[in-house]
Amino acid sequence: MNKNEINIGLIGFGTIGAGVVEIFNKNQDILSKKCGKPVNLKKVADLDITTDRGVEVKDGLLTTDVNDVLENDDIDIVIELVGGYEPAKTFILKAMENKKHVVSANKALIAKHWEELMETAEKNNVRFCFEASVGGGIPVLQPLNECLAANKFDSVYGIMNGTANYILTKMTEEGSAFEDVLKEAQEKGYAEADPTFDIEGHDTAQKLIVLTKLGFGEYVPQEKFYVEGITKVTPEDIEFAKNELNYVIKLLGIAKQTNRGLEIRVHPTFLPKKHLLASVNDVFNAIYIVGDFVGPVMLYGQGAGRMATASAVVGDCLDIVFNEDKRISYGPVDSQVNSIKNMNDVISKYYISLKALDKPGVLKNITEILNKNGISVESITQKTSSENEAVPIIIVTHETKEENIQKAIKTIDNSEYVEEESKIIRILE
Amino acid sequence: MNKNEINIGLIGFGTIGAGVVEIFNKNQDILSKKCGKPVNLKKVADLDITTDRGVEVKDGLLTTDVNDVLENDDIDIVIELVGGYEPAKTFILKAMENKKHVVSANKALIAKHWEELMETAEKNNVRFCFEASVGGGIPVLQPLNECLAANKFDSVYGIMNGTANYILTKMTEEGSAFEDVLKEAQEKGYAEADPTFDIEGHDTAQKLIVLTKLGFGEYVPQEKFYVEGITKVTPEDIEFAKNELNYVIKLLGIAKQTNRGLEIRVHPTFLPKKHLLASVNDVFNAIYIVGDFVGPVMLYGQGAGRMATASAVVGDCLDIVFNEDKRISYGPVDSQVNSIKNMNDVISKYYISLKALDKPGVLKNITEILNKNGISVESITQKTSSENEAVPIIIVTHETKEENIQKAIKTIDNSEYVEEESKIIRILE
Repeated sequence: MNKNEINIGLIGFGTIGAGVVEIFNKNQDILSKKCGKPVNLKKVADLDITTDRGVEVKDGLLTTDVNDVLENDDIDIVIELVGGYEPAKTFILKAMENKKHVVSANKALIAKHWEELMETAEKNNVRFCFEASVGGGIPVLQPLNECLAANKFDSVYGIMNGTANYILTKMTEEGSAFEDVLKEAQEKGYAEADPTFDIEGHDTAQKLIVLTKLGFGEYVPQEKFYVEGITKVTPEDIEFAKNELNYVIKLLGIAKQTNRGLEIRVHPTFLPKKHLLASVNDVFNAIYIVGDFVGPVMLYGQGAGRMATASAVVGDCLDIVFNEDKRISYGPVDSQVNSIKNMNDVISKYYISLKALDKPGVLKNITEILNKNGISVESITQKTSSENEAVPIIIVTHETKEENIQKAIKTIDNSEYVEEESKIIRILE
Repeated sequence: MNKNEINIGLIGFGTIGAGVVEIFNKNQDILSKKCGKPVNLKKVADLDITTDRGVEVKDGLLTTDVNDVLENDDIDIVIELVGGYEPAKTFILKAMENKKHVVSANKALIAKHWEELMETAEKNNVRFCFEASVGGGIPVLQPLNECLAANKFDSVYGIMNGTANYILTKMTEEGSAFEDVLKEAQEKGYAEADPTFDIEGHDTAQKLIVLTKLGFGEYVPQEKFYVEGITKVTPEDIEFAKNELNYVIKLLGIAKQTNRGLEIRVHPTFLPKKHLLASVNDVFNAIYIVGDFVGPVMLYGQGAGRMATASAVVGDCLDIVFNEDKRISYGPVDSQVNSIKNMNDVISKYYISLKALDKPGVLKNITEILNKNGISVESITQKTSSENEAVPIIIVTHETKEENIQKAIKTIDNSEYVEEESKIIRILE
């Protein structure tokens, strides 16, 4: 920037906002030196400016009036950390119209209102940066969009939700049930009181929308792809994966080019233990990118949390100071996507867990149903059970179409051979 | 850039050079669209322009006269892929003096002539980018220097040499001896005919110099730090690590801030299996960065090879097109290093492997020597051996100073109790 100093205004003094304040308290000298001019956090706006956030606050920094940021001619960059759709969107659009660059971590807003936000930024000739919206502190969007820009991407997928990964990790390590680990995660502050957003895959879906736009040039809203959470995963599934198949179960967001269109989906996935993503545990996230020239690249770190996310937010501010005029599109200029593949057309190997009734001919009849639907079986494992109880049967299939599996499961579940709804988990090779 | 089109000249039509040509053959349309103007590979200079490199070459692209690149007014960016010190350095300096931006993958040159290269770039107001010099195709330098710029770094370390990692991986998986795996790696093209540079740690050291400057603002030439390769690692060391300690052995380059100065060193290292770096196998590289705000971040991918390295080279060219005027220092402006810690002052846990003679009191005398040098023992394992043969003894120490270990080993090796030189491997917790 040509100005002698850069002033930043922050809206939203919550968890991450306090992290941003802390970075400026601690590292402002190195930031300013690196930028060659003073970089100041000038104003922090929030309705609540009295609660102690555990960070030192300089006199005059806090304000309850958002226009002290939005209408302040001194302010060059606005950080939006309010979260949610409104008033966050109004704040961002107003900041852009007032010719201020904007930094945001608001994945929900960006995933939903992508076009309006980008168009408004472009129209007003300001930059809009949101590295913190995917993978928290992990450098993901800039590497994908810039460092790796020489590539066409085959796939972009990964572990994008720390809460879900923490729960699956603990279930794997301790053999505990989903509900028990969720409760523990809530007590530790790793899961929200209402954890739906994280454990049902919506958070992962929003991040995947951003990655899909950057990787393949196509904006795909959430209603257009399949999203399944981790609530149905049981310790038995995890144990079978671990001991019988040498796999782990992770909640993955997957965007993948195929000959027959782009696959985009979120669901629990069996992953070979040798895959590096299988070693990403606890609250950590990692994004796995496969490019036509670079091959596989993985970017790993803390996908959430006050300090890590604030690191990405301030990194974006510096990027703007370094390159105020950088005009690069987010993702390829032209969409590289011919069509979005219908979930029914996805091809995968499947893990099927059934509770079969102890009747004669059960196994024969179930395999017949699979056969009729064009599903070829790789292995069948029948667990022992107490007398008169339903018998757990685990089937691993060869590659087949999702449509075939869904039809087969429907037929099986409507038959007299099973006691409860069968479950499938997709297998990534 | 303000010009209507960007022309790039390449010097050095070797392995990576051919990869760059291939990227332009295949993905030029998306590069040009992303940059908003045509980006052309205009000239490729090499003394040998007749050997087939397996890529399509357009008419008029090749030249044997380097001045068709260096003195060509049409060329905006020069890619140097000659390698080595001279004439590469002369070419780069001349390109800069002719006001051309420069992209290079030449770690040896950059690690040795850092100051001269940076000063010449600055004096001529051109950019000098070298993402490909560390970690091949992996985005490392830009994330470290820009995305993570809000942080002070605690440590930057990792697996930076694919050949060494391939050898250690195969030794671990197959229990083979170093020499056998090296031979196999040479046959597969993963190791050079003269592998010294890779297996003795020099390649890792050069990359570590670049990372240390970017992470801590300090240029430390190679003669100022400890570098040890992997030639002394045996299958027995690896087996003990794996089975007794749950560790793996990796060749690490380590730069780490401590209260008593910066540690910088390259050596084989015991790494807990739970550490994500322990899962980085074969020819893959990964850089592990710990920042005061972001916490741990790992960047993983192919650290060498034609396609991956070319991806990073072309990524640098795009970065220059996006931000011709970007003037950011490589690393913090002021060094954050008070002093470089002497290797003798490094504190670590140690694995010690001895070949003790079968004499009375051997164990007692060896532990006495360790005690006298202030070394506290965590475990001692005495392996069985055939009669009259030397007895392998493995000692794992608690944390102690390198100086103490070196003194103790010297005393032990000069004593009557051991048959051959003892070996130590440092343990990273």
